[in-house]
Amino acid sequence: MNHAAFQRRYRRLRDQIDRHLRTLVNRQYPRDFSRSLSYVLRARGKRVRSTLVMVSCEAVGGRAADAIHAGAAAEMMHNFTLVHDDIMDHAATRRGQPTVHTKWDPSIALLTGDVLLGMAYQSLLLTKTRRMPQLVDLFTEGLLDVCEGQALDLDFERRQRVTLREYSSMIDKKTGALLAMSAGMGGVIGGGTREEVRALYRFGLHLGRAFQIQDDLLDVVADQKEFGKRIGGDIVERKKTFLALTALERTSGNDRQLLREVFGRQGTLKTYQHHVVADVTAIYRRYGVIEAAQRQIARETHLAQRMLRLLPKNNGSAMLLWFSDLLLHRMS
Amino acid sequence: MNHAAFQRRYRRLRDQIDRHLRTLVNRQYPRDFSRSLSYVLRARGKRVRSTLVMVSCEAVGGRAADAIHAGAAAEMMHNFTLVHDDIMDHAATRRGQPTVHTKWDPSIALLTGDVLLGMAYQSLLLTKTRRMPQLVDLFTEGLLDVCEGQALDLDFERRQRVTLREYSSMIDKKTGALLAMSAGMGGVIGGGTREEVRALYRFGLHLGRAFQIQDDLLDVVADQKEFGKRIGGDIVERKKTFLALTALERTSGNDRQLLREVFGRQGTLKTYQHHVVADVTAIYRRYGVIEAAQRQIARETHLAQRMLRLLPKNNGSAMLLWFSDLLLHRMS
Repeated sequence: MNHAAFQRRYRRLRDQIDRHLRTLVNRQYPRDFSRSLSYVLRARGKRVRSTLVMVSCEAVGGRAADAIHAGAAAEMMHNFTLVHDDIMDHAATRRGQPTVHTKWDPSIALLTGDVLLGMAYQSLLLTKTRRMPQLVDLFTEGLLDVCEGQALDLDFERRQRVTLREYSSMIDKKTGALLAMSAGMGGVIGGGTREEVRALYRFGLHLGRAFQIQDDLLDVVADQKEFGKRIGGDIVERKKTFLALTALERTSGNDRQLLREVFGRQGTLKTYQHHVVADVTAIYRRYGVIEAAQRQIARETHLAQRMLRLLPKNNGSAMLLWFSDLLLHRMS
Repeated sequence: MNHAAFQRRYRRLRDQIDRHLRTLVNRQYPRDFSRSLSYVLRARGKRVRSTLVMVSCEAVGGRAADAIHAGAAAEMMHNFTLVHDDIMDHAATRRGQPTVHTKWDPSIALLTGDVLLGMAYQSLLLTKTRRMPQLVDLFTEGLLDVCEGQALDLDFERRQRVTLREYSSMIDKKTGALLAMSAGMGGVIGGGTREEVRALYRFGLHLGRAFQIQDDLLDVVADQKEFGKRIGGDIVERKKTFLALTALERTSGNDRQLLREVFGRQGTLKTYQHHVVADVTAIYRRYGVIEAAQRQIARETHLAQRMLRLLPKNNGSAMLLWFSDLLLHRMS
C-alpha cells in the first residue's frame, strides 16, 4: 500500500472506533452523568491506541475487526487517565474544549473516570479469545503503569530536581505503557507468538518515548497556528520536559541559574512572559538541546521500527511502519 | 460449629486477609504515595467482603484458601470506593481516622483510589481457576454497579425529592452489588453450579439491603458509646435514608413540612441541632418508621437466608447463615 492507501485505511479504522464508542453507554445514569460520559466518548481524537490494537492484531495474522472491543477498551482507559489527570492538574481545557471537571464539577469528573475504566474492562471482556487471562493481565499492568507514571509526574512537579533518567522512566510509564499495552494486546488477540507479542510491546514502548520527546520539542519549535498551542506553554507551566532536563544537565553559571529559577519552582508563571520563553529557548538552541531531542526521537523511532522486523511481512506490519513514521509527523 | 467456633474461624480469616493485604504494594511509588496506599491497606476493617468471598467458595465445596486473592481484590475494590467517595463527599474522617484526601491531598487520594482498583484486578488475576473470564466479568459488573450507585447517590443529594423505590435501587447498586459480587465470586472459584452462584449472588444482595437499612436505623436508635457515632448524624447531614423517605411517605401537614425542610435541602445543618434531631426522631417513632425498618431488615435477612437452602449443607454454608445473623448485630 502507498501513503494514500494507508491514510484511507487509518481514517476508516478511526471512524469505525468513533462510531463504536458512541454506542457504549448502556446504563441509565443520572442526566449530568450520562452527559459527561457521552461528552468524553464523543470527543474527537486521533484514536492512536485503538488503531494500534487493531493493526497489531493484523500484523501477527489476525483480523483487525476481532480487536475492536479491545481497541475501544484501550481508548476508554486512555480517556479515564485524561479525565483524572485533568482534575489533578487543574486543567481548564483539553483539545480546546472545557475539561469534564470544569464543564460539570470534580465529583462528576472523578466518577466519570471511574466508570470509563469499568466500561473499558467490560469492553475488553467482549473480545473473542482463548487468551483472556493474558489479555486482562496486560490491560491491568497497563493501568498500574499509567497510574505509577502519574504518581511520578505529580512527585516531579513538587520536587526541585529531577534527572533525565528519572524523566525517561516516568515517560515509559505514563505514555509508553499504554501504547505498549495496546500493541501487545493486538498481538495476543491475533494469536501472536510470545516473541511477536513482546516485539509489539517494545514497538509501542519506543514509539511512546519518541512521541513524548516530539511533544516536548513541538512546544518550542512548532508553527503556532498548525500546532494549536502557544509556543513555550511548557516553559510557562515550568514543566520538567526532556528539553528542560537536558538543558539543566548541559549548562552552568548564569544559564543554569536562569533555568533553575524557571523549572525549580512550583506553579505556572503568573502571566505569559515572552522574555522568559525567549531566554529559555535561546539556551536550548545554544546548547544543542533541540538537536539532542531530534537525535533521541530518531533513535527511538529506529528502535521501534527494528522491532517490526520480528513480525510477519503483511499489510498490518507495513501499516505499523507507516504509522510510526506518521505519528512523529503528527497526523490530524 | 457453635457460635464461638464460627467466631474463631471468622477472626482467623480476617487476620489472614489483614496480613495478606499488607504484602501487596509491590511497586516503587513516590514516598507520599506509597504511604497513602499502606495507610488504606493497613486500616483495620471488618473484612466482610473478603470473608464472604472465601466462605462462599467453601459453601459450594471449594477451599477457602483458594479464594484469598479474590477476597483481597474485593476488599481493595471496596477501599477504592471509600477513598473516592470520601473525596466526593468532602468527608474529613473515616472510622475515626483522617481520610486520605485530608491527610494528604485530593490528587494523592484520587490516584490512590485508581491504584487500589488496578491492584484489585491484579490480585484477582492471581486466582487459580478455569473460569477467569466469568470471574473478571462478575468483578467488572460489581465495579460498574457501585459507580452507578454512587452516581445515583450524588444525584439524590442534589434533588429535593427521592422515592423509597429509587433509594432501594440505589442501595442495591451501592452496597448490595459488592456483597453480591463477593459471594458470587466465591461460588465461581469453588466450582459452584450456575444455580449455586446465582443463589450466592442473591444472598449477598439481600444481605446488602438488610445491612444498609440496619445502618440507617442505628443512626437513630444505637447506643452512642457503642456505635461510636453521634446519634442523628444522618439527620444533621440531611441524608435521605430509608427512615427519612419512609417518614416522608407516611406524613402530611406540619410533620411533612418539617421533614421537607430538613431533607429537601442541600448541605449539612450549620451546627449539630439537638431539637431538629429530637423532632425528626419523634416523627419516626410516631409514624411507626422504626418498626417499618425493623420489619424490612427481618424480611431481607429472611430472603438472604432462604437463598442458602439452595447450597450444599457444609461448614461454609453454615457459616454464611451465622454470618448473616451476626452482620446485622454488628460484630466488631
